[in-house]
Amino acid sequence: VNGLFGGGKKDNKEDGQSKAGILGNMQNLYETVKKAQMVVQVEAVRVQKELAVAEFDGYCQGELVKVTLSGNQQPIRTDITDAAMELGSEKLSLLVTEAYKDAHSKSVLAMKERMSDLAQSLGMPPGLDGLK
Amino acid sequence: VNGLFGGGKKDNKEDGQSKAGILGNMQNLYETVKKAQMVVQVEAVRVQKELAVAEFDGYCQGELVKVTLSGNQQPIRTDITDAAMELGSEKLSLLVTEAYKDAHSKSVLAMKERMSDLAQSLGMPPGLDGLK
Repeated sequence: VNGLFGGGKKDNKEDGQSKAGILGNMQNLYETVKKAQMVVQVEAVRVQKELAVAEFDGYCQGELVKVTLSGNQQPIRTDITDAAMELGSEKLSLLVTEAYKDAHSKSVLAMKERMSDLAQSLGMPPGLDGLK
Repeated sequence: VNGLFGGGKKDNKEDGQSKAGILGNMQNLYETVKKAQMVVQVEAVRVQKELAVAEFDGYCQGELVKVTLSGNQQPIRTDITDAAMELGSEKLSLLVTEAYKDAHSKSVLAMKERMSDLAQSLGMPPGLDGLK
């Protein structure tokens, strides 16, 4: 009779066990992924707090204007020298933009490096720094 | 004999089938997730290109200084009026920073809105806009 209608109780149990085995593993996998996500989130918040208080100075040619941005590109301070003032509004506008671009690229570079260090420390592939 | 040594050929086949079924589903799931990731990546690049050419103007009090940033906070232009020049370097430095902060917050807000629209259009939960 067993042969006719597929496995007897023991076989179903084995079949059930293998299904439960697979589903059990998927449950563990799910828990592990969840924990990993938590770690990543906690670390990402820590790095963002670090970046928020970091400062990056940018200059225009001749350092007549200095601009300071945070690690997440927030403007903090602008320092326009008297010498820069003498160049007139048009030229000064260009120098200010130049100094801001310098500070902005330094800040973005530092942020990307911190994010990619974080990704690597968490065992993620380096390519993830395109996350920004 | 079958009963003694667990299921006959047919039962192992069924057991094999259920395992293959589960693994087959996981393969499909994997393919689907892969495709979804591709779509997200293509859309994210499109949005970033849009933001890169968008412009956001920021002003200080009295609009004596105007600053223009792109949608990914790149400095594009600074416009310092002659009236602002008359206030001297210290006061002007404050006004420039104020105008940059205004432009920066507008640009970040627009970027977050675009990213959260994108996430929703892809069926992702809205909370993801904390991505930046």
